[in-house]
Amino acid sequence: MKLYGYWRSSSAWRVRLGLGLKGLDYDYVAVHLKNGEQLGDEHGARNPLHQVPVLELDDGTRLTQSLAILEWLEETHPEPALLPAAPLARARCRALAEIVNSGIQPVQNLSVLLAVQALGGDRMAWGRQAIQRGLEAMETHVSGLDTPFLCGEAPTLADILLVPQLYNARRFACDLSTVPTLTAVEARCEALPVFQAAHPSAQPDAF
Amino acid sequence: MKLYGYWRSSSAWRVRLGLGLKGLDYDYVAVHLKNGEQLGDEHGARNPLHQVPVLELDDGTRLTQSLAILEWLEETHPEPALLPAAPLARARCRALAEIVNSGIQPVQNLSVLLAVQALGGDRMAWGRQAIQRGLEAMETHVSGLDTPFLCGEAPTLADILLVPQLYNARRFACDLSTVPTLTAVEARCEALPVFQAAHPSAQPDAF
Repeated sequence: MKLYGYWRSSSAWRVRLGLGLKGLDYDYVAVHLKNGEQLGDEHGARNPLHQVPVLELDDGTRLTQSLAILEWLEETHPEPALLPAAPLARARCRALAEIVNSGIQPVQNLSVLLAVQALGGDRMAWGRQAIQRGLEAMETHVSGLDTPFLCGEAPTLADILLVPQLYNARRFACDLSTVPTLTAVEARCEALPVFQAAHPSAQPDAF
Repeated sequence: MKLYGYWRSSSAWRVRLGLGLKGLDYDYVAVHLKNGEQLGDEHGARNPLHQVPVLELDDGTRLTQSLAILEWLEETHPEPALLPAAPLARARCRALAEIVNSGIQPVQNLSVLLAVQALGGDRMAWGRQAIQRGLEAMETHVSGLDTPFLCGEAPTLADILLVPQLYNARRFACDLSTVPTLTAVEARCEALPVFQAAHPSAQPDAF
């Protein structure tokens, strides 16, 4: 498999984590977002939305959208599981993931920040507010957590979404003292080799 | 089951469609978003993010986030299926849904539009651009479609996400002549009684 990504793309990072947790090997192909490489025809042929990640299978099939890729990984490589077994627990896990996936990240991604800046807005303040509000809502959902990870004894989809979002939170200078459960879970994730290998700073295109 | 929603909320609309396609009965409880009813403590207790939809089960368990609710419906009430059977087809269906779920809707929701307006931006132009760009990417993904619905012979998650987004596209005066495949699928959906019953204009809180 080939993963088209970018070291700091939180969506590509999610897929690196999914592949890593499943123990799957892949080739990493960097698409340089800051240089606009994703906007060219070459990457447009891989994904009409001109985004990373794209996961290319050995037969050339291309999968897009990080959540769709992670659900596919879960269905085709069930062990170790990225979702709990019981339907209600799965719904809760997916809801936590969605707080980041649809509630936070899209509002603070680069194209939105550039549009905010074009309106004369402060992109740092904009991103900070979106992330702070979303993470604090997520903290409310998980306060009193009695497991090491968000949905049990091992990392799941919810942790995969959380860790890159907390990295972005620091880039935007969010106040993380209000989300102690989330940062405690993050510390447990970051102690794991799979999370270390998927970290942006460990990618070949990091600068 | 009890669905807390709002007639024009596209996320609540998605869950109405899911419940309808599964043939499930529910009580509809309107949360008046324009009056700010979602911001109060009563709704905050249901969802710390102060958003609709919330699906309350008969035992009081509350599910949030439309995609998590739809996946739960699919797992607990498998027939009729809202996703294709084969993993790759499921990944493609979820990717189409994600173009709307994380790619379009979050950038044009009310809280973002209010923030854009506070910066002196034109909220209509902002929303229109986000929707137009996302729908045209979705059209590229499905051009040459040879089935009546986006992922086969019956509506799936992708169609459930598409229909409310096209309604929003019209509110923002998007040019839909560039997305003929999507509007043709929409017309087939709207011919179905389930889609008619879930439409905003058919909800008790419509005005």
